[in-house]
Amino acid sequence: MSNRLMQLMRGTGPALLMEAHDPLSALLAADAGFPAVWASSLSMSTAWGVRDSSELPWNLVMTVLEYMADRVEVPILVDGDSGHGNFNNFRIFCRKLEQLGIEGVCIEDKLFPKTNSFRKEGQPLTPIAEMCGKIRAAKDHLRDGAGFAIVARTEALVSGHPMDEALARARAYAEAGADAILIHSKSRTPGEIFAFCEQWKQGTPLVIVPTTYHSVRVEDFIHTPVKAMICANQNLRASITGMRTVCATINRTHTVGEVEDKIATVSSIFSMLDYAELEKSEALYL
Amino acid sequence: MSNRLMQLMRGTGPALLMEAHDPLSALLAADAGFPAVWASSLSMSTAWGVRDSSELPWNLVMTVLEYMADRVEVPILVDGDSGHGNFNNFRIFCRKLEQLGIEGVCIEDKLFPKTNSFRKEGQPLTPIAEMCGKIRAAKDHLRDGAGFAIVARTEALVSGHPMDEALARARAYAEAGADAILIHSKSRTPGEIFAFCEQWKQGTPLVIVPTTYHSVRVEDFIHTPVKAMICANQNLRASITGMRTVCATINRTHTVGEVEDKIATVSSIFSMLDYAELEKSEALYL
Amino acid sequence: MSNRLMQLMRGTGPALLMEAHDPLSALLAADAGFPAVWASSLSMSTAWGVRDSSELPWNLVMTVLEYMADRVEVPILVDGDSGHGNFNNFRIFCRKLEQLGIEGVCIEDKLFPKTNSFRKEGQPLTPIAEMCGKIRAAKDHLRDGAGFAIVARTEALVSGHPMDEALARARAYAEAGADAILIHSKSRTPGEIFAFCEQWKQGTPLVIVPTTYHSVRVEDFIHTPVKAMICANQNLRASITGMRTVCATINRTHTVGEVEDKIATVSSIFSMLDYAELEKSEALYL
Amino acid sequence: MSNRLMQLMRGTGPALLMEAHDPLSALLAADAGFPAVWASSLSMSTAWGVRDSSELPWNLVMTVLEYMADRVEVPILVDGDSGHGNFNNFRIFCRKLEQLGIEGVCIEDKLFPKTNSFRKEGQPLTPIAEMCGKIRAAKDHLRDGAGFAIVARTEALVSGHPMDEALARARAYAEAGADAILIHSKSRTPGEIFAFCEQWKQGTPLVIVPTTYHSVRVEDFIHTPVKAMICANQNLRASITGMRTVCATINRTHTVGEVEDKIATVSSIFSMLDYAELEKSEALYL
Repeated sequence: MSNRLMQLMRGTGPALLMEAHDPLSALLAADAGFPAVWASSLSMSTAWGVRDSSELPWNLVMTVLEYMADRVEVPILVDGDSGHGNFNNFRIFCRKLEQLGIEGVCIEDKLFPKTNSFRKEGQPLTPIAEMCGKIRAAKDHLRDGAGFAIVARTEALVSGHPMDEALARARAYAEAGADAILIHSKSRTPGEIFAFCEQWKQGTPLVIVPTTYHSVRVEDFIHTPVKAMICANQNLRASITGMRTVCATINRTHTVGEVEDKIATVSSIFSMLDYAELEKSEALYL
Repeated sequence: MSNRLMQLMRGTGPALLMEAHDPLSALLAADAGFPAVWASSLSMSTAWGVRDSSELPWNLVMTVLEYMADRVEVPILVDGDSGHGNFNNFRIFCRKLEQLGIEGVCIEDKLFPKTNSFRKEGQPLTPIAEMCGKIRAAKDHLRDGAGFAIVARTEALVSGHPMDEALARARAYAEAGADAILIHSKSRTPGEIFAFCEQWKQGTPLVIVPTTYHSVRVEDFIHTPVKAMICANQNLRASITGMRTVCATINRTHTVGEVEDKIATVSSIFSMLDYAELEKSEALYL
Repeated sequence: MSNRLMQLMRGTGPALLMEAHDPLSALLAADAGFPAVWASSLSMSTAWGVRDSSELPWNLVMTVLEYMADRVEVPILVDGDSGHGNFNNFRIFCRKLEQLGIEGVCIEDKLFPKTNSFRKEGQPLTPIAEMCGKIRAAKDHLRDGAGFAIVARTEALVSGHPMDEALARARAYAEAGADAILIHSKSRTPGEIFAFCEQWKQGTPLVIVPTTYHSVRVEDFIHTPVKAMICANQNLRASITGMRTVCATINRTHTVGEVEDKIATVSSIFSMLDYAELEKSEALYL
Repeated sequence: MSNRLMQLMRGTGPALLMEAHDPLSALLAADAGFPAVWASSLSMSTAWGVRDSSELPWNLVMTVLEYMADRVEVPILVDGDSGHGNFNNFRIFCRKLEQLGIEGVCIEDKLFPKTNSFRKEGQPLTPIAEMCGKIRAAKDHLRDGAGFAIVARTEALVSGHPMDEALARARAYAEAGADAILIHSKSRTPGEIFAFCEQWKQGTPLVIVPTTYHSVRVEDFIHTPVKAMICANQNLRASITGMRTVCATINRTHTVGEVEDKIATVSSIFSMLDYAELEKSEALYL
C-alpha cells in the first residue's frame, strides 16, 4: 500500500506536522489544514500527568492512538521513543500501530526507559547495530513493510557527538531500511541542521524538529533534503496557556460569565464531532 | 472517612468546581486554586474525539480518572451520566471510583445510553423508584458509603417538566441517600434555580451548573442551599480556542517561531510535573 | 471481502464452533481442529471473575478479542449480547471488531444490561423494530458490511414465546440484513429446534447452541438449515475441572510432584507459542 | 498496615502459593484452600497468547490483577519480572499494585525485556547496586512501605553463578529492604536449595519455586528458612490439559454430549460467582 507520510515527503519543501496529544488536538490540527499529525510522547505523557520517561505504559499510548486514528483522516506519525524495549518490543509496537491504521513511527537511538532530549546532557546512545536490528525487525514483522514508514531519529548531535557520528548513524539507519531520518538538534540556530543537509547525499528524506531553533520557516528548506518539519509540542503548550488563563479568570471573578465569549462554543464542539449525524441515525434506526 | 467534597459544601457560599477532561487539565485547575475538580463526560468524550452519548466506554473513563486521581490533591467529582446501565452497573462503577480514591459521583435521572442535555428537548426521565434504587444500591455496595458522595442530578426542568416534578424528584433522591442534589437548568437566566432554592427545605446541599445562565456569580448564592457551582466545560473550550489559534498561526506563517512566546514553555511543563524529582531519584537509586 | 464464517455455513452439515474465553483457549480450539471460535460472554465474564450481566466492560472484552485475533488463524464469532446499548453502541462495537480482524458478531434480542439466558424465566425481548434497526445500523456503519457477519439471535423460545413469534422475529432479522439466525432453545431435547428448521424457508443459515439438548450430533443436522453448532462453554468448564483437580491434589499432598506428569508440560507451552522464533530472531536482529 | 503475605511466612513450614493467570484461576485456588496466590508472568502471558518476554504490556497485567484482587480474599504475590524497566518504572508499578490492594511483588535480578528462566542458559544479571536501588526506590515510593512485601529473586544459580554469588546477592537485597528472598534453582534435585538454606543466617524468609525439583514436599522444609513454596504454573498447565482433552473429544465425536458429565456444571459457575446475590439485589433495588 502506498504510504501517505512518505508521499508528503516527495515535495520541494518540507510538510508541516502538527503535534497532537489526544484525538481532539489531532482533529483540530487536521481541521486547521495540517497534512499530518505528530503524536508526541512528551505531549501525551503531559496530558496524562506523567513524565516523558517511559512512565506512560505503551499500550495506553496505543489506546490514545486508536481513538486518534478513528477520528482524523490525515496520517499520523507516532513518536515511538526508543521502541519500548528491544527489537521484539519494537516490532510488536509497530505491528499494533499498523493494525490501527497508523502510517508511521519514529524510533530514536536512545536507551529504554526514555529520557527527554531536553532534560539531560550527554545521554548514551543505542549501539548502531542494535538500532539497525530494530529497524530491520520491524520492517520484517509488519504485514506491509512498504505501507508503514519508519523514521529513524538520531540523537547524536543532541548528545554531544560530532557531525560525523550523526552522519554515520543516519547512513546506517537508512541502509537498514529507515524510510526517513530525523536529525535532531537542540542548537538555538539551524546551523548544524544546514551543515548536515549539505553532507546528506543518500536520497532518504530528512525530518527536523525546530523546537530550539524555532525561527526557521518552511521556505528555508526548499530544495534541501528536509521534507518534513515537526511542530513538536505547540498544541499542548497552547492548550495549557488557554486553560491557565481561563482558570485564573474564573477563580478571580467567581463567575464563568467573564470568559463565555472568549472560548469555543459548545455548539462548535457538536459540529466538530458531527452530533447531527447521530440525530439523523436515530431517526433512521430507532 | 470524611469526604472532602461534602466538607466543601458546608460553607456559606458555593464552592467552584472546575472542569477537567484529562489529568493535565485537572492539575491546571488545582494549581489555579480550585478546591475540587469536575470530571465532565462531555469534556472527556470530546477529548477522546467521540460524542457525549455513552460512546466512550466506561472503563476508559476509569483509566483517565485513575491518572487524574494519581496527579491531583484536590477531590474529584465524576460525571457518572445515568450510571452506565442499571443499579448493578452503577454500583460497580462507584466501587471502582472509590478504589481509585475518587470522592464522589454525580448520577442523573436519564436513560442509558446518555443524551447530552443540550442536544434534545423533552428527553425521557428514569422512573423515580429506579433512580432511588441506584442510589441505595451504590451506597450499600461501597466499602465506605459515608466517605463517597453521591450527587443526584435531576433533569426534570431541562426536560420540560414543571417545578413540582423537579422538587418531588430531588426530595425522593435525598431520602434515598443522595448527599447532594444537582438541579440542572438550561434557562438563560437563573430564575428557576432561585425558585427551586426557595422551596428547598431538605437541608441537603444543592449543586448548580451555570452553563446557560452564565452571568451568575458565587456571591449570588451566599446563604442559599447552593453549595457548589460547577464550571462544566470551560477548560476544554479554552484549550480548543488556544489550539485553534496556534494551529492557524503556524499554518499561515510556516514557522513555530511566531507562537513561541505566546504559549507555555517546555520548562514550565517540567516544573509542573516535577522532573527535578526524577533527577534527584536517579542520583539516589541508580 | 469474503467472510470465512459465512463460507463455513455453506456445507451440508453444521460446522462446530468451540468456545474460547481468552487467547489461549482460542488457540487450543484452533490447534484441535475447530474451524472457528465462539468468544462467549459467559465464559469471558467468568474468566474475569464477574457475572454475565454486562459487568465486564465492553472494551475490556475488546482487549481480550484483540489478543485472540492476533493469535489464531481461524475466524472468531463474538458473543455481542444485546449490543451493549442501542444501535449506536452496537455499530461502534461492530466497527471496532472489524478493525481487529474479527469476522462476525452475534446480537440477541434482549435488553441491556444483559441477563444470562439460563438465569431467569420470561425475560423481556427487544421490540422487533429496534432489533432490526441495530442490524441495519451496524451493516451501514461497517467499512465492509459484506465482510463481517451479523448473526441475529432470538431468545423468543427461551423466553417462553410461541414458535410463531420466534419465526416472525427470525424472518424480520433476516430481512433486515442478518447473515445468519441463531435460534436459541433451553429445552432438554432438540424437538423445538427441529420444528423451527422445518418451518424455516428463508435460505438464511441457522445456528444452534446445544447446551441443554447436548446429546445432538453434527450428523443430526445434515441437510437441515442448521449450518453452525456452537459449543458454548465447554473449554471453560473443562479448564475449571482441570484446575479444581490439580488444586485439590497439591493442597492435599503438599507437593507439585504428584501432578507433574498429569498436566501439560512447560515445553509444550513454549512450542505452542513459538518461543523458537524468538531465539532465531534474537540471532538475526540483536 | 500488617501484610498478610509476610504473616504467612512466620510459620514453621512453608506456605503454599498457587499460580493464577486470571481472576477465575485465582478464585479456584482460593476456594481450594490455598492461603495466597502467585500471579505468574509465564502464566498470564500464556493466557494472553504471548511469550514470557515482556510482550504483555505491564498495564494489561495490571488490569488482570485489578479484577483478580476484586475477586479473591487471599493475598496475591505478583511476579514483577525485572521491574518493567529501571527503578522508576518499578516504583510506579509497585505503587499501582498497592492501590489495587495487592500485597506483594517479586522482582528478579535480570534485564528488561525479560527472558524466561527456563529458556536460556547463562543470562546476564542486573548489577547488585542497581537491583538494590530498585528495592529501595519502591519501598520509599509506596504509601505504606511496611504494608507491601517486596520479594527479591536472585537468578544467580539459574544463570550458572556459584553459590557465593547467590548468597552475596541475597544478602545485599535483604539489606536493601527486601522482605523475603526468592532463591531460584533449575536443578532437578533440591540439593542446591538445601545448601543455600544452610548458609542463610540473615533471618529474612526464603521463598522457593520447585518447578524442576518438583518432588519436594512442604514437610521437607520445616524448620528451614524456607517460608513459602510457589506452585509456579500448575493451574495453567492443568487448564490446558483439561481443554485439550475436551476439544479432542468434541471434535472427534461431533457432539458436546460426550463431555457433559466430565466437566464443571454451569450452575457451579453461577454459585462460585454468586449469581444469587444479583437476584436478591434486583428484588431490592429494581
